[in-house]
Amino acid sequence: MDILNHADTTTANGTSPAAAAAAAVVAPATPSSLVTPPLDADEFRRQGRLVVDFIADYYTRINEYPVRPAVAPGFLARQLPETAPARPERDALAAALRDVRDLILPGVTHWQSPRHFAHFAATASNVGALGEALAAGLNINPFTWAASPAATELEVVVTDWLGKALHLPERLLFSGGGGGTLLGTSCEAMLCTIVAARDRKLAEIGEERIGDLVVYFSDQTHFSFQKAARIAGIRRGNCREIPTSRESGFTLSPKALRAAVRADEASGRVPLFLCATVGTTPTAAIDPLRELCAAVSGHGVWVHVDAAYAGAACVCPEFRHAIAGAEAVDSFSTNPHKWLLANMDCCALWVTRPAALVAALGTDHDVILKDPSAAAQDGHDVVVDYKDWQVALSRRFRALKLWLVLRCHGVEGLRGFVRAHVRMAAAFEAMVRADTRFEVPVPRQFALVCFRLRPASAGEKRTRGGEVVEPNELNRRLLEAVNATGRAYISSAVVGGVYVLRCAIGNSLTEERHVREAWSVVQEQANVVLAAATATCPDERA
Amino acid sequence: MDILNHADTTTANGTSPAAAAAAAVVAPATPSSLVTPPLDADEFRRQGRLVVDFIADYYTRINEYPVRPAVAPGFLARQLPETAPARPERDALAAALRDVRDLILPGVTHWQSPRHFAHFAATASNVGALGEALAAGLNINPFTWAASPAATELEVVVTDWLGKALHLPERLLFSGGGGGTLLGTSCEAMLCTIVAARDRKLAEIGEERIGDLVVYFSDQTHFSFQKAARIAGIRRGNCREIPTSRESGFTLSPKALRAAVRADEASGRVPLFLCATVGTTPTAAIDPLRELCAAVSGHGVWVHVDAAYAGAACVCPEFRHAIAGAEAVDSFSTNPHKWLLANMDCCALWVTRPAALVAALGTDHDVILKDPSAAAQDGHDVVVDYKDWQVALSRRFRALKLWLVLRCHGVEGLRGFVRAHVRMAAAFEAMVRADTRFEVPVPRQFALVCFRLRPASAGEKRTRGGEVVEPNELNRRLLEAVNATGRAYISSAVVGGVYVLRCAIGNSLTEERHVREAWSVVQEQANVVLAAATATCPDERA
Repeated sequence: MDILNHADTTTANGTSPAAAAAAAVVAPATPSSLVTPPLDADEFRRQGRLVVDFIADYYTRINEYPVRPAVAPGFLARQLPETAPARPERDALAAALRDVRDLILPGVTHWQSPRHFAHFAATASNVGALGEALAAGLNINPFTWAASPAATELEVVVTDWLGKALHLPERLLFSGGGGGTLLGTSCEAMLCTIVAARDRKLAEIGEERIGDLVVYFSDQTHFSFQKAARIAGIRRGNCREIPTSRESGFTLSPKALRAAVRADEASGRVPLFLCATVGTTPTAAIDPLRELCAAVSGHGVWVHVDAAYAGAACVCPEFRHAIAGAEAVDSFSTNPHKWLLANMDCCALWVTRPAALVAALGTDHDVILKDPSAAAQDGHDVVVDYKDWQVALSRRFRALKLWLVLRCHGVEGLRGFVRAHVRMAAAFEAMVRADTRFEVPVPRQFALVCFRLRPASAGEKRTRGGEVVEPNELNRRLLEAVNATGRAYISSAVVGGVYVLRCAIGNSLTEERHVREAWSVVQEQANVVLAAATATCPDERA
Repeated sequence: MDILNHADTTTANGTSPAAAAAAAVVAPATPSSLVTPPLDADEFRRQGRLVVDFIADYYTRINEYPVRPAVAPGFLARQLPETAPARPERDALAAALRDVRDLILPGVTHWQSPRHFAHFAATASNVGALGEALAAGLNINPFTWAASPAATELEVVVTDWLGKALHLPERLLFSGGGGGTLLGTSCEAMLCTIVAARDRKLAEIGEERIGDLVVYFSDQTHFSFQKAARIAGIRRGNCREIPTSRESGFTLSPKALRAAVRADEASGRVPLFLCATVGTTPTAAIDPLRELCAAVSGHGVWVHVDAAYAGAACVCPEFRHAIAGAEAVDSFSTNPHKWLLANMDCCALWVTRPAALVAALGTDHDVILKDPSAAAQDGHDVVVDYKDWQVALSRRFRALKLWLVLRCHGVEGLRGFVRAHVRMAAAFEAMVRADTRFEVPVPRQFALVCFRLRPASAGEKRTRGGEVVEPNELNRRLLEAVNATGRAYISSAVVGGVYVLRCAIGNSLTEERHVREAWSVVQEQANVVLAAATATCPDERA
């Protein structure tokens, strides 16, 4: 019996059997030339080599690209057709890869360039990328334990591995009654924990009081937090952004937090959630977890730690102090895709009470099943259905990638990686400090150096033509000049009204020579910018 | 100047220079044996071949695995150490791949097996997997246009390509004033659109009225919708689940919807959002979009279409009728990772008014920049910052994968793929109908066949021993028996109180012989289950 022919004799939801048969092959005009099926082992082997070589060639040549492309909006769109092709061209993958090389790569910002020092790095590794490839090849969807048992169990194991490697408090790990999961981003981690905290609180005080809930964070907290709170229905006016100051290193003040919580309580609002940050985005400042937890203790506030960037540093015992006091927090997240070689995307979230997540995000009642036999054997007594720990149902097999990274580098390997970046950043800082035109306005933390041209010794302002050039504007021009060279890419932040340049070292390909070159570019462009700012109005020079 | 030595003379946040130097290599005991750096082109080429061959071998052998593994909770966890290794073993990736083969693969559910007919398929293709690999290799983070211009522009182009290929209304495309984005899952698409609708509505009626907002869906809508609404702060009591019936094919009734909306308005609540489904999860039922839009017209309700599964079918003109009336909806999402060869994860969301998304999820005010020069040249007049279209800041380069799929298969190739599955499903349906013990209780839609053992001709119940065996229970046993063979994996649903088995055809490796074999397994296990249900109490047989 030929199922396909048999099917042609049935009514297929309006399909004309003839039309369907004609369209069953890619080139209906020549039905004898059956194309390779979409998934094919031999063809995968051949095409996989093309892609692997393409990526390897990219890494070899990455230093030849300007880090940030000089392209105008629409540059790519206008080179591509307006519709997808009806039929593939001959050897379509090879042709597409040529277009990636010729059309797309010249227009991407090269995050893996050794000269990319902007934002925080998205670190890549061989095994990180290949872990993604392997997960994509297996293409499973482990939304429950049953939907792919090994994937769920590997995630349980690997989040405990990572938590131990980062010296997290035991109560955040499965082995201590908590547990971890792998999400895509810190924003998801924030949203899931806010919703867990919110629903727990509303169960106490009544759903109608959602408008009374208040969340706390500092003016240095990543904007994603406020966005997550807003998504969860927290009122705009109940998002308490607490100001920080240069004097306290732009860290969240426990005293100011305590005062804000008390003021809200006094006016009938309900303190809900604190987002503390270890390694803020502007300057990698470290909020004092112990003191902040003490400040909200007894007020029923869920304390979350966003350690998206700096959590990785805790793999080194000498940086563990950054999360001192984490024993009292409710949840903690960090992004192994940022500084632990795990490629995009991978955010690890740990909570002390998984049941709170499941209560808010679970979709049925038997979501955590105790399995007595397994428990009796080895203490692994929970079956986790990770769909109940996150927003979505479907999920990728991220544990495989993180497990490969930990297996193939080991904890000592990750320490060496982090320390090498910190040393390079310290070296960059020393070079900045050795040039009297520059200053380091906030202490270097980890591998992030904030620096700027200091206000001119001749006074607080330089002028260009009739135009006053503020120090902030001068530094803005320096940033643009540096980035326009394509030889280094740095970013900026405004803290306490001061515009600073950020040199974030964290890419896998970055070596000391790239850091030296970046500093040369900064110095050279500083010469240009300073000359332009003063040369046109020499009479105003000191 | 040697930066590393230089750095060693500075204070590195408490790092002892000696300790840091010792730890800078993976094996500090033998500092001369510098390991390969984490990202290395030549090593990537070598390791990449290992992984490509591993995946190809997996596809070759996939048919040898039981589709659903017979493992007990804890089976993997107890085979792995409790902590990550301090140092990698020799040739760590090869060793890890052996563990993937020996420990992990026997414990995963093989979603790519040609005999996986459960849930909806997560279709894979060579270029889908390799597109993921390529994106992971480039490892860019295109959260704004500037953060990687080509990635953003490719997403703009490819969502328009896909929208046109699916015959979506022009107003959902960039070319028609709307626009698309690629998210991870349908749940994200639902959450983002609910929040956009919510904030637009609250801007009109006041933030304090969040508790009055009502969302509408049917008892067949995926549970993720209610979860998304709850995450967005919609009250549990304001989630209107409208009952469906077998008579109307389990589709959402426009009349019932209209009545619900009017009742809510009459009692002072505010209708906010309708989620219509094209291809429901239980039976792939098709909600009537035109009539539903008409039912809420004038009530200020945002209409979203969840076409996670069946949206793909609209690539075939003969299935376009499924979304007739979509011209009036506000947003539409489908998952190319479900039935369009795009591997996990990939959800395409289109909206008619991107500004509504940006107003709710944007984090600054210059998020859509008009570029007059580009507009003048070719009509591509917007620069999109996709961070403002989604929950998270960071995002992967999903457009690359989808573009490769469209390039390498062409629209005709996708049509052939969809039609082949529909024909196989029609054939399976015909085989079910030819066996008088079975029935097809709801019409087959697309490539999903719902079927069941019909209630015994001898009466509505069979008994086993003293136990009454309801038809639902009998079918539950059949499901377990089929899945326990490992030779086919099907799932189930309960619709209108009736337990049905679901055979969802959609995997890339599935051929007609696998469908035939699945039906043989079902028949064979039906013999066993029916014999067991009747043999022990022969006196009750007719």
